[in-house]
Amino acid sequence: MLAEKIIQGDRFALSRAITLCESSLYSDKITASTLLEKILPYSGKSIRVGVSGVPGAGKSTFIEALGIYLLSLKMKVAVLAVDPSSSRTRGSIMGDKTRMPKLSNHPAAYIRPSSTGKTLGGIAAATHEAMLLCEAAGFDIILIETTGVGQSEILVKDMTDHFLLLLLTGAGDDIQLLKKGIMEVTDTVVINKAEGENLIAAEKLKKELFLWNHELPVHLSSSINNTGIKEVWDSIIKSIETKKVTSSFLLKRKDQNIKWMHQAALSFLENIFYQTPGIKDKITELEQQVSDSELPATSAALKLLEIFTKK
Amino acid sequence: MLAEKIIQGDRFALSRAITLCESSLYSDKITASTLLEKILPYSGKSIRVGVSGVPGAGKSTFIEALGIYLLSLKMKVAVLAVDPSSSRTRGSIMGDKTRMPKLSNHPAAYIRPSSTGKTLGGIAAATHEAMLLCEAAGFDIILIETTGVGQSEILVKDMTDHFLLLLLTGAGDDIQLLKKGIMEVTDTVVINKAEGENLIAAEKLKKELFLWNHELPVHLSSSINNTGIKEVWDSIIKSIETKKVTSSFLLKRKDQNIKWMHQAALSFLENIFYQTPGIKDKITELEQQVSDSELPATSAALKLLEIFTKK
Repeated sequence: MLAEKIIQGDRFALSRAITLCESSLYSDKITASTLLEKILPYSGKSIRVGVSGVPGAGKSTFIEALGIYLLSLKMKVAVLAVDPSSSRTRGSIMGDKTRMPKLSNHPAAYIRPSSTGKTLGGIAAATHEAMLLCEAAGFDIILIETTGVGQSEILVKDMTDHFLLLLLTGAGDDIQLLKKGIMEVTDTVVINKAEGENLIAAEKLKKELFLWNHELPVHLSSSINNTGIKEVWDSIIKSIETKKVTSSFLLKRKDQNIKWMHQAALSFLENIFYQTPGIKDKITELEQQVSDSELPATSAALKLLEIFTKK
Repeated sequence: MLAEKIIQGDRFALSRAITLCESSLYSDKITASTLLEKILPYSGKSIRVGVSGVPGAGKSTFIEALGIYLLSLKMKVAVLAVDPSSSRTRGSIMGDKTRMPKLSNHPAAYIRPSSTGKTLGGIAAATHEAMLLCEAAGFDIILIETTGVGQSEILVKDMTDHFLLLLLTGAGDDIQLLKKGIMEVTDTVVINKAEGENLIAAEKLKKELFLWNHELPVHLSSSINNTGIKEVWDSIIKSIETKKVTSSFLLKRKDQNIKWMHQAALSFLENIFYQTPGIKDKITELEQQVSDSELPATSAALKLLEIFTKK
């Protein structure tokens, strides 16, 4: 019933289903997995793009500009987010849709703030499932925003076909290049806010990036002047078409699916472990001994495993 | 027997024990945990210092200079490493002791290259245990080197009392500041290679860091000219003494112990899971279905858990 509604493009049903995937209750996980099995044949047809950048890089303005451009090409656009800080601060990125006013009011666009949760892995898993649901609901492009501070990039990389990194120029800001860990997973760099006085510095940064890696596509963009958006999108499409020819596109998606299976299994396993009768009490006792250095962490862990394997 | 020898300061026994902790065999884990229980009362008395910095920041030269200085204060110094790349490249940091020639030949110093292993968590856990063993063997200062590229810093932070970050100045190099994730866990910054023409830039970077965070101690150092080493060490000691007064020193160590217990438990749990009869075959089957998008990752994970909980 819910599955049919989603496939028909019912947004209310879509939102309900995403909320279900975000639940950490085991019974909800089972319901969610049954739902996902139903919609799975309808998923997978979108282009999945990760959008990363440090706070202030202009991610929401850029996503809004890119989204509006895609809508003009008659594509349906969904925007999701993986934001580990949202659990703590309740919505640093995409906390309110007013940050993308045009996109959020458009009938062919769907914006969903980041799931919140205890673990980054859990937030990412829910977003991965939300993406499948959006695809089943007919969205052609899924944009997944993330914060540009490390581990969440790797997870977003693991659920997208193409990874965009937004950089800024200006005093002290080229600093962000150092994030080579992120640069190495980046498919396309966008030097954002390349407008007015920034333009010369942006061109300079583009040259520096070229020297660092000749292969990396780098584009200047200004969401205010609405420049560079088409170039960035053309670059994404070109890269994806190339990957499809060599079938590396499909192989990557297959690998990603396998990774999510293992990640989900380990996450369920952890939940079961901590909910095993007797474990909780023993943890309290062992935490005391371990924190007082009466017992090594390893020994305490072995004791917990002993209880677990006996149950 | 092995425990006694370690406590007596037998280096051969120490090295053997560390090798035992690095083993991923379950039977070795049990032997290691019994050994750790015996030496635990003799551990904990050292000062544990993490040393991080990007490749090229001069970590080994700095550690050698700092180590020699500490030896001159009649302290025994152990140097360990958490280097995730060592599994792949077999020893990028501390692969050979020739990188710290003076320290490695000194009778009061002990240098152990990074453990290698499949997971960063496993490498870090083994290093954490190696640290306890070194303490039991009478080392007063444990220096733990890491690579400065993200996640390993957090793990080293979780096993040390004080976290040093080595930075460089020079063209494009202030770039590294962006690593705010690391800057935020840093207790003391060392601007290294502050010598000759670099000196002015180093002073400039120091001022920039002061503007960014007034509270963060920043020191200039040159391992070649042997400057700044005493200042850095005095800063570490001062910070630790302050923490000891407020008892935040002890509380942090207690928290760290608890974290290591949970980490060890989850790591054992994962091993048990993947070694459960029937799981391996099922994984091969499910990986195929998941990669062909016949089954959602969540459903596949639930199927695996079902097998596991039945056993």
